[in-house]
Amino acid sequence: MNVQTPVLSSETTMANAIRFLAMDAVQAAKSGHPGAPMGLADVATVLFNRFISIDPADPAWPDRDRFVMSAGHGSMLIYAIHHLLGYDDMDIGQLRNFRQLGSRTAGHPEYGHAKGIETTTGPLGQGLSTAVGMALAERMHNARFGDDLVDHYTYVIAGDGCLMEGISHEAIDLAGHLGLGRLILFWDDNRITIDGPTDLSTSMDQQKRFDAAGWHVQSIDGHDAEAIAEAITAARAETGRPSMIACRTVIGKGAPNKAGSHKVHGAPLGDEEIAAARAVLDWPFAPFEVPSPVKDAWGAVAGRGATARNAWTRRKEAHPGAAEFDASLAPADAEALARQLAAHKIALSAGAPKMATRQASEMALEVVTATLPNAVGGSADLTGSNNTRTRSMRSVSRDDYSGDYIHYGIREHGMAAAMNGIALHGGFFVYGGTFLVFADYCRPAIRLSALMGVPVTYVMTHDSIGLGEDGPTHQPVETIASLRVMPNLTVLRPADAVETAEAWEIAVTSTGTPTVLCLSRQALPTVRTEHSDENKSARGAYVLRETDGARDVTLIATGSEVEIALAAAARLAETGVKAAVVSAPSFELFARQDTAYRAGVLGTAPRVGVEAAMRQGWDALIGDEGAFVGMTGFGASAPAGDLYRHFGITPEAVAEAAAGLL
Amino acid sequence: MNVQTPVLSSETTMANAIRFLAMDAVQAAKSGHPGAPMGLADVATVLFNRFISIDPADPAWPDRDRFVMSAGHGSMLIYAIHHLLGYDDMDIGQLRNFRQLGSRTAGHPEYGHAKGIETTTGPLGQGLSTAVGMALAERMHNARFGDDLVDHYTYVIAGDGCLMEGISHEAIDLAGHLGLGRLILFWDDNRITIDGPTDLSTSMDQQKRFDAAGWHVQSIDGHDAEAIAEAITAARAETGRPSMIACRTVIGKGAPNKAGSHKVHGAPLGDEEIAAARAVLDWPFAPFEVPSPVKDAWGAVAGRGATARNAWTRRKEAHPGAAEFDASLAPADAEALARQLAAHKIALSAGAPKMATRQASEMALEVVTATLPNAVGGSADLTGSNNTRTRSMRSVSRDDYSGDYIHYGIREHGMAAAMNGIALHGGFFVYGGTFLVFADYCRPAIRLSALMGVPVTYVMTHDSIGLGEDGPTHQPVETIASLRVMPNLTVLRPADAVETAEAWEIAVTSTGTPTVLCLSRQALPTVRTEHSDENKSARGAYVLRETDGARDVTLIATGSEVEIALAAAARLAETGVKAAVVSAPSFELFARQDTAYRAGVLGTAPRVGVEAAMRQGWDALIGDEGAFVGMTGFGASAPAGDLYRHFGITPEAVAEAAAGLL
Repeated sequence: MNVQTPVLSSETTMANAIRFLAMDAVQAAKSGHPGAPMGLADVATVLFNRFISIDPADPAWPDRDRFVMSAGHGSMLIYAIHHLLGYDDMDIGQLRNFRQLGSRTAGHPEYGHAKGIETTTGPLGQGLSTAVGMALAERMHNARFGDDLVDHYTYVIAGDGCLMEGISHEAIDLAGHLGLGRLILFWDDNRITIDGPTDLSTSMDQQKRFDAAGWHVQSIDGHDAEAIAEAITAARAETGRPSMIACRTVIGKGAPNKAGSHKVHGAPLGDEEIAAARAVLDWPFAPFEVPSPVKDAWGAVAGRGATARNAWTRRKEAHPGAAEFDASLAPADAEALARQLAAHKIALSAGAPKMATRQASEMALEVVTATLPNAVGGSADLTGSNNTRTRSMRSVSRDDYSGDYIHYGIREHGMAAAMNGIALHGGFFVYGGTFLVFADYCRPAIRLSALMGVPVTYVMTHDSIGLGEDGPTHQPVETIASLRVMPNLTVLRPADAVETAEAWEIAVTSTGTPTVLCLSRQALPTVRTEHSDENKSARGAYVLRETDGARDVTLIATGSEVEIALAAAARLAETGVKAAVVSAPSFELFARQDTAYRAGVLGTAPRVGVEAAMRQGWDALIGDEGAFVGMTGFGASAPAGDLYRHFGITPEAVAEAAAGLL
Repeated sequence: MNVQTPVLSSETTMANAIRFLAMDAVQAAKSGHPGAPMGLADVATVLFNRFISIDPADPAWPDRDRFVMSAGHGSMLIYAIHHLLGYDDMDIGQLRNFRQLGSRTAGHPEYGHAKGIETTTGPLGQGLSTAVGMALAERMHNARFGDDLVDHYTYVIAGDGCLMEGISHEAIDLAGHLGLGRLILFWDDNRITIDGPTDLSTSMDQQKRFDAAGWHVQSIDGHDAEAIAEAITAARAETGRPSMIACRTVIGKGAPNKAGSHKVHGAPLGDEEIAAARAVLDWPFAPFEVPSPVKDAWGAVAGRGATARNAWTRRKEAHPGAAEFDASLAPADAEALARQLAAHKIALSAGAPKMATRQASEMALEVVTATLPNAVGGSADLTGSNNTRTRSMRSVSRDDYSGDYIHYGIREHGMAAAMNGIALHGGFFVYGGTFLVFADYCRPAIRLSALMGVPVTYVMTHDSIGLGEDGPTHQPVETIASLRVMPNLTVLRPADAVETAEAWEIAVTSTGTPTVLCLSRQALPTVRTEHSDENKSARGAYVLRETDGARDVTLIATGSEVEIALAAAARLAETGVKAAVVSAPSFELFARQDTAYRAGVLGTAPRVGVEAAMRQGWDALIGDEGAFVGMTGFGASAPAGDLYRHFGITPEAVAEAAAGLL
């Protein structure tokens, strides 16, 4: 092309490199979202060029700044930057293979899929809300280890979609309340959504909204480098409040004919428009070609990060708390925990009073938190009901981040996303509670826990009609199955205090899988009256009561219904029917056992399943020929005992179902 | 007691009647939430006494004002008021049996469980968000039938929990944008949540927040009757904006020792405290006793409602649009729809091009909306992707409520709740779209659709890895099963354009069950090449290709995988294996067929299930001995064809699985 060679070391050209990589990659993939990376290129360039401290040679350096692209469809912004910064897993071949099988450049940024991706985004609002957890973890970690070891920022880019989603409200309210001054959010105010201009669907004054939540708010031209830099400087100076910078941008900036329209949001620009952009932006380079001066400019950003990381490493080596700091980032000491929990289990099996598993969970947590100095708990405003707070725990507040108990408020979704963020940040074992039925309220964030393999623990109490009077809106009849079907999620429904302790051991020692604990509101007897060192719950299912001689029937139950199965077995024994009882706290863990073990537990006799929930998923245990005693629809409002009788989940019904199979 | 007889006709005593009924009922039940009804008694009394227009003798009168207790745990407020107003199903025995089996006084207010309950509440934020749909429906209905027939208010009481939940953000943004001036929200600003004072978890300036969303905002003492009345008058005068009235209240007001504390939130006050309240409030009456002057005062409220309803009835009788008005409230004309869809099906089976079922859905919708003048569509900002807008549809806006297409914005949860509200209000057949994976974002509202039996239709496209490059965050591998397990929800996954038309017929004619349509992004061939008048999808599953002679194997598939099953059958035929193919668009509908039909479809040969999703739920069709070709974990980012091959969901794999069973 007959154009003058542009000045290639300016931030404008650094930004244009992002723009063309995004255009070229989306065009090559024939799918993707060029508009956001192009509109945000200037903001991102100034942020990275002048502020962000990351080192591509050590992407997991603990004190790095965190960057979250909450508008995950703009993934090419991250991939382009990572390529330009020199991440060794993001060569140009990856960009050429954007959105192709086996490439690191997935359609949306995926944690663990390429280096330096701090969290998986794409489902809107999640990145922002996860970042709140990261920023909170930074302050909490800082409160424990000081500025020399923990002193970084969390930067987030969010679009209109992120800010329309309800989860954003929970997140910004929580962040404002906790005064997370090191959280800096860029709002990509491009006034375009998929359907068209934003005024089709919103009239929100976002600046006023963030101000109402206690945020520091600025508004700038998102294509003015100096304005961007000044705003970031001002945001960093605000230490007691999170900052929102409204960046007025033009979506698809650089595309001469299509910029500013919803047509650049989620479709390739086309060869013609890209050629026109090359002409207009003085970019006489081939697709995927980045000229050396631009590479060098981006390389300098990585160099600044490496220098910062080296300085940090030296500080850390000299730091008296270095070992403790490393320990906070490492997995839990499984052996120490096992010893403590074994002692706890012995005490329980020797004769514990009848208690709800939520109460047993609190007892187990006393053991867990005594062993794990970095445990951080919380609840979505149901502390007393979820039994999530142990005696020594202190509340986290904007005035004191050294606490270890978080009042998440009535914000299940924000809580779950923040838990993901805390875990991703590192430094803490994190759990949080709500009622099981409200897993629905945080399901998109639970899904990301599972997809990312972040080992957070959900403490979900009131796990069946056994919660009684609150009625069907609060009774999770389908929730357990809906969680069991989610990949890479361990769902545990313990039957008594011993199994609850075992469930906590599984949760705490999990490294790549989140855990949901389903716990009863109502009191349950101890069914594991003989101590075993082995964590039987870790098998997923096991024989709790074997028969004397060949089984006539096997009764399989979970949680509060194990008591019912035992009573049914006793009743059957009176009529000469030999019924074994299997406790099955986790279907996923059982599915992972070898065939012989599974066959031994299930036996060859007919099987009856018992769970105060829907049957779906049970056929894998009882076979489609098995009988099931449970729920077939929503619950009702009444005392728990009345409901169990009303819905026919009783020892009599189980015995009858068993008899029917013989 | 030695007290003076109080003045029993004042609003104070009308409010105290609510307080004591709440105290007494919670005490009798030994569970429940007295704090909110006591704190809100004054607001509710003024609202009902001076403003609300409802007639207990005709609780479903279309032009009644709507009252929604979004803080559903305060259900005794509604039950007490309904008793005092003289609802014939709410005698004092019901209040004495609060939260007991078989009573109408469930723990949380349940739609359909007692007269006059406009929507089920309890899961926080839902009532407010559903009310937004009601208020929108009121304006839309008004735009069609005028002030003489449609002219009412929607009043909502919400607590701190409702306003912390993310869904509230979606709802108030939408309501402000649409200028719903007849929506009036009372915020019970009692500064208490379950965990303690609200300042444990929030610093939100709610008034500023609502102002940012375009609401009219006032702040009053929630125990000052004149202030309450003035605020409501001012709110009603604001015709172009919804109104929020921040009511500073004392939770448990009237309990002399416990008021103002989180201890009155969710537990009985105790006999002693109730006795003290009786003394302090000059209430010398027995538990559950309401003195005649108080009953009379509340009766006058009902009388005013009856007068208004009678006047409306007279207006309607004289109205030229009365028949059309009634038709808008009645179920769809199933016969007319069947005729139109039959013609459409004939055209399709005669030779339709390959098309995505989302596209087929748009075609079916053209037929549906042409037949149903009261159809109202929308999408959560995915109109072009969900194919939810037919040619004739016009956008609804604050300036023109006569449109029939709603831009819900990137607010799946708010959309689903609003759809519930529109359906509950009456006058419209309502559907709305998003990606299937984002069913998770609106699951709590879908659950309420199902629990209430509200026949809304969810159009959920991009229903598998077949969506391709957007990757695992957008690919619903577990979502279909998680919806199938929900009681009273019809999930349909049509295989081609013909089944899609049948699915729409099922959705439109459903009266007590919501429907989810799972639709493909990718193009699919027409598999129903022979026309049948019968809606085969309504059987849930049916034999699409029978074998010539006894079956060797039965292949069962849904949606986009039916094509694969057919190809597998053809492949098996080459090796002499006779494979029947069953299309199973709805597991729920199939489960409802009689045993003979089910047995005939499933056959006695071994069975293979094929669905690009998790196996859970499939055992009911293929048996635990059956083979399943589908997903075992999350998806990946790549073109659809590559993903099907990568995950082994191919005709070859299905044929191999079948061969393995023989």
